[in-house]
Amino acid sequence: MAGEGVRLTDEQRLDWLRLIRSDNVGPRTFRALVNHYGGARAALAALPDLARRGGASGPARICSHDDAERELKAAKSLGIRLLTLGEPDYPPRLAMIDDAPPLLAARGKLAALALPMVAMVGARNASAAGIRFAERLARELGEAGFAIVSGLARGIDAGAHRASLPTGTVAVLAGGHDRIYPPEHAELVDALIADGAVVSEMPLGHEPRARDFPRRNRLISGLAAGVVVVEAAARSGSLITARLAAEQGREVFAVPGSPLDPRAAGSNGLLKQGATLVTEAADVIDVLRPILGQAAAPSAEEPESAPPPAGEPGAGERARIVSLLGPTPVTIDDLVRLSGSSPAIVRTVLLELDLAGRIERHGGGLVSLL
Amino acid sequence: MAGEGVRLTDEQRLDWLRLIRSDNVGPRTFRALVNHYGGARAALAALPDLARRGGASGPARICSHDDAERELKAAKSLGIRLLTLGEPDYPPRLAMIDDAPPLLAARGKLAALALPMVAMVGARNASAAGIRFAERLARELGEAGFAIVSGLARGIDAGAHRASLPTGTVAVLAGGHDRIYPPEHAELVDALIADGAVVSEMPLGHEPRARDFPRRNRLISGLAAGVVVVEAAARSGSLITARLAAEQGREVFAVPGSPLDPRAAGSNGLLKQGATLVTEAADVIDVLRPILGQAAAPSAEEPESAPPPAGEPGAGERARIVSLLGPTPVTIDDLVRLSGSSPAIVRTVLLELDLAGRIERHGGGLVSLL
Repeated sequence: MAGEGVRLTDEQRLDWLRLIRSDNVGPRTFRALVNHYGGARAALAALPDLARRGGASGPARICSHDDAERELKAAKSLGIRLLTLGEPDYPPRLAMIDDAPPLLAARGKLAALALPMVAMVGARNASAAGIRFAERLARELGEAGFAIVSGLARGIDAGAHRASLPTGTVAVLAGGHDRIYPPEHAELVDALIADGAVVSEMPLGHEPRARDFPRRNRLISGLAAGVVVVEAAARSGSLITARLAAEQGREVFAVPGSPLDPRAAGSNGLLKQGATLVTEAADVIDVLRPILGQAAAPSAEEPESAPPPAGEPGAGERARIVSLLGPTPVTIDDLVRLSGSSPAIVRTVLLELDLAGRIERHGGGLVSLL
Repeated sequence: MAGEGVRLTDEQRLDWLRLIRSDNVGPRTFRALVNHYGGARAALAALPDLARRGGASGPARICSHDDAERELKAAKSLGIRLLTLGEPDYPPRLAMIDDAPPLLAARGKLAALALPMVAMVGARNASAAGIRFAERLARELGEAGFAIVSGLARGIDAGAHRASLPTGTVAVLAGGHDRIYPPEHAELVDALIADGAVVSEMPLGHEPRARDFPRRNRLISGLAAGVVVVEAAARSGSLITARLAAEQGREVFAVPGSPLDPRAAGSNGLLKQGATLVTEAADVIDVLRPILGQAAAPSAEEPESAPPPAGEPGAGERARIVSLLGPTPVTIDDLVRLSGSSPAIVRTVLLELDLAGRIERHGGGLVSLL
């Protein structure tokens, strides 16, 4: 896909940034808005009305032109580039997930983002043996031509990054580029951008909160062709990454450990569920090499260039669609069928609700009421 | 199957013992002879002629009536019972393998041999953690109603036996009952026969040699519904047991370990080949319980009671069949088809060659020239 994308103009990039930085606009809503209105600018113009009709309590904050320009300027001064979904520099595998960030802020060598990638994740309180194994695996996968993606955490993540510094490694942040976590890894970031890259979907100044880490984990798995879980306790963050990887159609690998070692409980559990067992780099390479032979398929649902006619729902239609929604996720197809409204009307009502912060969009076109 | 078998008379048991203790008569040849001649006594009478025609260099040693009686008497004085294939006390799963020993010498509580069994095998130089895990697993499987079968070796074997002493454990010897190996486990044998059993297919006085251990391992897997490999280095004896288990249609289980631990290389390798991963007893029980629900199928090729007409091969036929044989195992069906001789003639020539020590019988009815 690299080389096939179309570059945005500076003005378009600014519109994209404003739209994704506005309240209640996540990657899925962004995509729905751009599809519906044919572009970010038209979507921005429609936002206030949509949110009001969706039942927003107050006026939804829309990122101003000035704020977006400030972010672009600050990013530039820090050597950060904003890669937009669909542009040639955007990491090709990440573009395939259905909640790919419209904009990805990247520092370092963009060439690392074009390499085939393997994610390596694991325990922060890893054992010495676990870190040693992670280092060996990362080095060997790097020598085989893979960039290593991880989350910059202590333990396994840091070991995997360090061992793949010479061959290319990619760190995904849960906060903004100026809010490195943990802080003691600022030097690792400096070393990392020499041949690798650091990426974030968050704005500068964003302090990472607990809930940002699971969200960030989808980017770790989404960038990679496969995820290797090295040491993971039961119910650990690494297992979230493994689950997201499976949902995204990525290969899941796990390193076995003694049943008496609690740090192996999660990885052994993944093996029971069918993850591929890894004791050496060849176990990963053998599975991934055939996959890499295939070109990355373009995203099934590219933002369209021509705007479809935007239906205007009546009050009765809107109420009927809202009444069909509840906390259990349902498909948009079901809403169309059960409401008797046109797909365009249902999509518009959902956009309104979305921008009013009243629904959540899930994978597979599912929505639920918040 | 238990309770359905027919007990042999004392004379028949003596004939069986003489036949299986004669030179060049292994379990497969024993079965072929009894099938062909309709009984052990007729087979004993035919042995000298068969061996001579097969090209034996000297007279093959036939176990004498007196020697067999001496063995029976000595066994009795040591509290050993000789269980014969097809009798109700014979372990039902073991009867299903195609090289089941015609006679199994057993000490201890025969009730243990009627329990569903799980084999546990592993490294002699096991780690403390490995032995601790083996003990826990054996205890829990014992409490779930399984007898634990193992090989009485140091390390994992001894740990598994000791932990299952109260619930029933079965040790399979590579030598005779009066040649316990390793010698320091004589006390473990004494403890074991209180609620469990010790079995051997070898005559009293037989000192176990290196080649007896792989042969013995088929009985460990054959007695059990599944085999758990706890710690096993690459190319270890436990992997032979796992291979035999797979060939016998037994479930193969393996306990994972760190890729940096050489004692886990064999078990991790089994997991890569599809063995079921075990971190707790439930992993074994969940797989085996449905299997145990099914009655053990009777052996496909029971010794027949009525003798078929024994064909008498001519010299030309014998030479043609011998010329078709080589070091690569071939099926008896192929020999019949390619030689143009009747199945009865081919079987007779194979028996002759077998008793002359010139062929080897493999699983699946395959034979090769030695």
